[in-house]
Amino acid sequence: MTNQKLESLLNQMTLDEKIAQLLQLATPFFEGSDNEGQITGPLAGLKISDEVIANTGSVLGASGAKEINNIQKAHLRKNRLGIPLLFMADVIHGYKTIFPVPLAIGCSWDLKLAEKSAEIAAKEAAVSGVHVTFAPMVDLARDPRWGRVMESTGEDPYLNSQFAKAFVRGFQGNDLQNDVNRVAACVKHFAAYGAPEGGRDYNTVDMSERQLREYYLPAYKAALDEGCEMVMTAFNTVDGIPATGNKKLLRDLLRDEWKFDGVLISDWGAVKEMIPHGVAEDEAEAAEKAILAGVDIEMMTACYPNNLKQLIESGKVDEALIDEAVLRILRLKDKLGLFGNPFRGADEQQEKELVMSSGHRQAARELAAKSSVLLKNNRVLPLPKDKKIAVVGPFAQNDDILGPWSWLGSKEEAIQLYEGVQNKVASSLLVTAKGCDIGTGTEDQLNEALKAAREADFIILALGEDSEMSGEAGSRADIRLPEVQLQLVKKMKQLGKPIVAVVFNGRPLDLHGVVEDVDAVLEAWYPGTEGGNAIADILFGDVNPSGKLAMSFPYSVGQIPVYYNSFNTGRPKDAPDAQERYVSQYLDIPNEPLFPFGFGLSFTTFAYSEPQLSAGHLTPEQPLTITTEVQNTGKLAGEEIVQLYIRDLSGEVVRPVKELKGFKKVFLQPGEKVEVLFTITEEQLRYHHSNLEFTSDNGKFHAFVGPDSQDGKAIPFELIK
Amino acid sequence: MTNQKLESLLNQMTLDEKIAQLLQLATPFFEGSDNEGQITGPLAGLKISDEVIANTGSVLGASGAKEINNIQKAHLRKNRLGIPLLFMADVIHGYKTIFPVPLAIGCSWDLKLAEKSAEIAAKEAAVSGVHVTFAPMVDLARDPRWGRVMESTGEDPYLNSQFAKAFVRGFQGNDLQNDVNRVAACVKHFAAYGAPEGGRDYNTVDMSERQLREYYLPAYKAALDEGCEMVMTAFNTVDGIPATGNKKLLRDLLRDEWKFDGVLISDWGAVKEMIPHGVAEDEAEAAEKAILAGVDIEMMTACYPNNLKQLIESGKVDEALIDEAVLRILRLKDKLGLFGNPFRGADEQQEKELVMSSGHRQAARELAAKSSVLLKNNRVLPLPKDKKIAVVGPFAQNDDILGPWSWLGSKEEAIQLYEGVQNKVASSLLVTAKGCDIGTGTEDQLNEALKAAREADFIILALGEDSEMSGEAGSRADIRLPEVQLQLVKKMKQLGKPIVAVVFNGRPLDLHGVVEDVDAVLEAWYPGTEGGNAIADILFGDVNPSGKLAMSFPYSVGQIPVYYNSFNTGRPKDAPDAQERYVSQYLDIPNEPLFPFGFGLSFTTFAYSEPQLSAGHLTPEQPLTITTEVQNTGKLAGEEIVQLYIRDLSGEVVRPVKELKGFKKVFLQPGEKVEVLFTITEEQLRYHHSNLEFTSDNGKFHAFVGPDSQDGKAIPFELIK
Repeated sequence: MTNQKLESLLNQMTLDEKIAQLLQLATPFFEGSDNEGQITGPLAGLKISDEVIANTGSVLGASGAKEINNIQKAHLRKNRLGIPLLFMADVIHGYKTIFPVPLAIGCSWDLKLAEKSAEIAAKEAAVSGVHVTFAPMVDLARDPRWGRVMESTGEDPYLNSQFAKAFVRGFQGNDLQNDVNRVAACVKHFAAYGAPEGGRDYNTVDMSERQLREYYLPAYKAALDEGCEMVMTAFNTVDGIPATGNKKLLRDLLRDEWKFDGVLISDWGAVKEMIPHGVAEDEAEAAEKAILAGVDIEMMTACYPNNLKQLIESGKVDEALIDEAVLRILRLKDKLGLFGNPFRGADEQQEKELVMSSGHRQAARELAAKSSVLLKNNRVLPLPKDKKIAVVGPFAQNDDILGPWSWLGSKEEAIQLYEGVQNKVASSLLVTAKGCDIGTGTEDQLNEALKAAREADFIILALGEDSEMSGEAGSRADIRLPEVQLQLVKKMKQLGKPIVAVVFNGRPLDLHGVVEDVDAVLEAWYPGTEGGNAIADILFGDVNPSGKLAMSFPYSVGQIPVYYNSFNTGRPKDAPDAQERYVSQYLDIPNEPLFPFGFGLSFTTFAYSEPQLSAGHLTPEQPLTITTEVQNTGKLAGEEIVQLYIRDLSGEVVRPVKELKGFKKVFLQPGEKVEVLFTITEEQLRYHHSNLEFTSDNGKFHAFVGPDSQDGKAIPFELIK
Repeated sequence: MTNQKLESLLNQMTLDEKIAQLLQLATPFFEGSDNEGQITGPLAGLKISDEVIANTGSVLGASGAKEINNIQKAHLRKNRLGIPLLFMADVIHGYKTIFPVPLAIGCSWDLKLAEKSAEIAAKEAAVSGVHVTFAPMVDLARDPRWGRVMESTGEDPYLNSQFAKAFVRGFQGNDLQNDVNRVAACVKHFAAYGAPEGGRDYNTVDMSERQLREYYLPAYKAALDEGCEMVMTAFNTVDGIPATGNKKLLRDLLRDEWKFDGVLISDWGAVKEMIPHGVAEDEAEAAEKAILAGVDIEMMTACYPNNLKQLIESGKVDEALIDEAVLRILRLKDKLGLFGNPFRGADEQQEKELVMSSGHRQAARELAAKSSVLLKNNRVLPLPKDKKIAVVGPFAQNDDILGPWSWLGSKEEAIQLYEGVQNKVASSLLVTAKGCDIGTGTEDQLNEALKAAREADFIILALGEDSEMSGEAGSRADIRLPEVQLQLVKKMKQLGKPIVAVVFNGRPLDLHGVVEDVDAVLEAWYPGTEGGNAIADILFGDVNPSGKLAMSFPYSVGQIPVYYNSFNTGRPKDAPDAQERYVSQYLDIPNEPLFPFGFGLSFTTFAYSEPQLSAGHLTPEQPLTITTEVQNTGKLAGEEIVQLYIRDLSGEVVRPVKELKGFKKVFLQPGEKVEVLFTITEEQLRYHHSNLEFTSDNGKFHAFVGPDSQDGKAIPFELIK
């Protein structure tokens, strides 16, 4: 429809109809839903009238072409102007074919596969009737206590931005209106939800505006630059004001400065949560603050429908704000083609054919293998396929490997680790035992595992956190593996056999007590539907691991936050003239994380030549290039993620010790060499100055090309403007 | 001298003389010093000419009337204009008579004794020749990993502000010029040094300006409002710029907004540290940034003397800035009367008589007892004086109880715990054994301790950190007692005898594994010179403990930061309608600290009546009063610290769940009652709004009167303007 037609539709709507359009409710409120009328608990308290429901703008969490089409049909019968519903859902790392959790995908550094995973998720969701996914989540995360780090691609603004774009491309494609196998994306959580104090979910976020703009905002902006249709607010405060009512953040920055004109939705209940936050005395004030800040859709509370009319009548809210919001929602419905075809891609037949298709599962398997990170390998991996192997531990035969935010994924269809191993090795050579449960264990379990392990030549020790231990509201103050699993490691170690630990989890863990006692550690994350196959592909050498950490693994919880792009301080520990005591350090642990950002091993080895610059300086008109020869010096073909970091030695404000500015994935046969070239531009050297202007300065820089954020010789260059 | 005379003196100075006046050097550079010429290590790299030394403005770390007078005499012989040196030193919690560490003093909530401790420290320092002390340190601290929390009075802006004023009054008195037994105070570290990331000393500080102004700045401002003569810069960055070169912080806020016209000194080496920080390419740029920001004195590096002249000649720095700085230094020298008497209070005879006098020691004993906090008492304390007692543990006979920042304190003269106990109980009833060292132990040590304990009716278990484990650059990632001490607790517990743990340390510790296994816990901190006597006074009931925590004790290191005046969040765990999972919580530990701010037990009990308000609302003109009857309901006389907290239920920005607004210490005989009255004024309800304006709003509030930050019924009232 033209804008004019949309405005004409808007003009036909009563104020009540407009206000209802701003509401989003879950399926129990809707005729035709499988759980219609199951309005219990907090939902019952919403007191939504039938009239409001008939005019509601969007539905949360419906799935399946049949149900969604039923709801839509019933809705269109009742809606006076025939405005179709928007169906939105959390399709985070797959719809039913579950890919690894986003933090794992971040470790693949593979933008094409990430895009493909989003495309497949979109396709499965779209044929099942979903129009919008609440993804990508691009919150920068530095605190592994926070359970929701699993949903982020990690600690780096550049890497997060690249993934944000890849996911948006994958979900939305190039022609949202006509390509009904795509869904609109909704980037979240705006802003800085990833920095809750103490790593406790929903807790206060506080940082300088410089930090916000320099590190936390870029990935949201990247998603919008890629055309992301929607934005979701964050639960947390930003500079003392909940994001959902934060006018400076939403209206001044997102709307006015960034020119975002898409739909802005609150997170679940976040409008009403301004009351417990303590910036609204009641629901009316919460509604007022949210609409003034620019929130179009209120999710799952009823502050808008129960208060906006009075707020307009009393003059506290201008009706023009409602019109703007409704128009944005109508425009999105139009962009999705819903006025022409309110059922869009929903197709029961296609749903049966496409969802969990073998091609989709194959893509999930490939991405899961690329997302795993080999943290240690004392020459024990890859394992032979003709030796006796014991697969031991609470994740040996455990289908809880889809990870949080996979509500439509079927654990029953997930390939467990033991199953994956069975697909590689004759069953006669395999034994398996649990050893213990995730958090508890019995003597019998332990003995059974010891017995199994004694029979074997190699032990695969499958450890981890269950999926409830991370994800939303899954914060932990202790980020070690549960004590019973650490004991299992100690007991296995005593057998004196080669041990390969495979760790399933949703956050960087403190892996002390594991790393030292085993011969290899493979960080498998929650690998998704094809997890067992993907991990077995690596363990037995059918895939050479290439993942690199997208988030630092702390030495211990007392080191948090630890991240690679930190400041040098005035008293760096590694300075040549550093004193013994009076430097920035801990007395009891190193400053460095256990495993740094960008780190990951391969079954082969790669040698880096000293990088060569095309010149000693660059100008805004004349970029530099830096080239490094990377050679596979081992005996297996493998893929390496070559990383470019830059350090600005002296800025108007302090600049990080290193910043990721580029990376390339190269696949090399044994002995093969390749010249890897990066371009360094003036634009890459810009940062937020004391006045928050984003510019570059003349001066000295170091470039580093290496396999992770710690390795690599400093190559000096200058910027001359 | 009149300002005119000072300006006339300034006009006689050459540029070189003026620049040298801005330098502060340690004693080895000065003729007459006991360690004259011992210029080694980094000092040797300073390359300071004799001419600069002859014109240097101030001396760091000299002590003793004899040495200081010798240096001053030699200096005046060489200084062309006869400008005396200023002698500055770190007199933090006592000069030679060492009081408890400031965090302990904070737990006394006793402003009079705190003032007296500063007065005594000033007197001892002044007769020993010191003119200025680098105290009080008033950095708000929420992270016990940071070793320097011991030097702060804790986590609360109001309590810190009250102590800041008390210390300034104690150091400076009312008539600095004529009262030669006082010293000028230097408040530090400006600003927000107490919030290093990860609790790692010198590390990056980042927070919103609102947080800075609302919580971190008030105590510095309080010290200045009390007339504090000097300010020291912080090592850390503030909003991305090192404090020492931070024009917005120092010139715009401290000088222009707060009108501070006293001397601003860098911390040790902090001017030059702008180079490793990464905001200055070289010493010249560091000097330029510091002088432009408003730093008058450069401590222990030579960026000023080696560069300022050229910077002026090249036009980068206006000579007027130098003149301003020199004039401020000369004015301070004049305020201290040094132009009339350059030796001021320095007096070898008085030094002998006053330093460590019995009166001073008595004051230290009193304050140490008031600073100790009884965290648990399962009816075992006070101990009888006629039973057999084993004093066990690495702090049983240990003179390392003065704490960090007591460089002139003599451990040999400190009263160890066992000595204090011996002053109460006949030696025939006492046994003692080490059990283990601070961080290591032998089987023999353990057995000896077990043997000693078996003979006794009661065990006093003296545990803790040695003083190197906290203080500057004393950050720890693990804040438990060392493992060997935890083992000692377990072994002692097995004896089944009553155990009283006395803990000596410089930070809130994770006391799990101690609290559960013992019958009483007395937090003794580093109690200072009279520590053993003061602790014994409490253990045997001669003093009833009254200290209350000035900083929360976390449940575990993974809970950091935890502090009482936090935000409620949008999903508080304790809400009546809170869901089981989707609330702000940890899965594995409570949200509450192990011991909250304001908490501390007595040997008696106190009952609080429900507080009564004088009216339902207040206005700016008509404050409220709130009265509570507090009764000693136990059998011993005792002192209670009655605390007033206020909560603003809804603000323009989020307000904390509680804020300390007042406290009263009341001493009550058994059965005695007293009515405690607090006044609530509009001024107390002000906070920094979104535009950073400091005002109050109409609305609803709760008042709480109770024994700590957790107890106390909410009493509603309103502000109507």
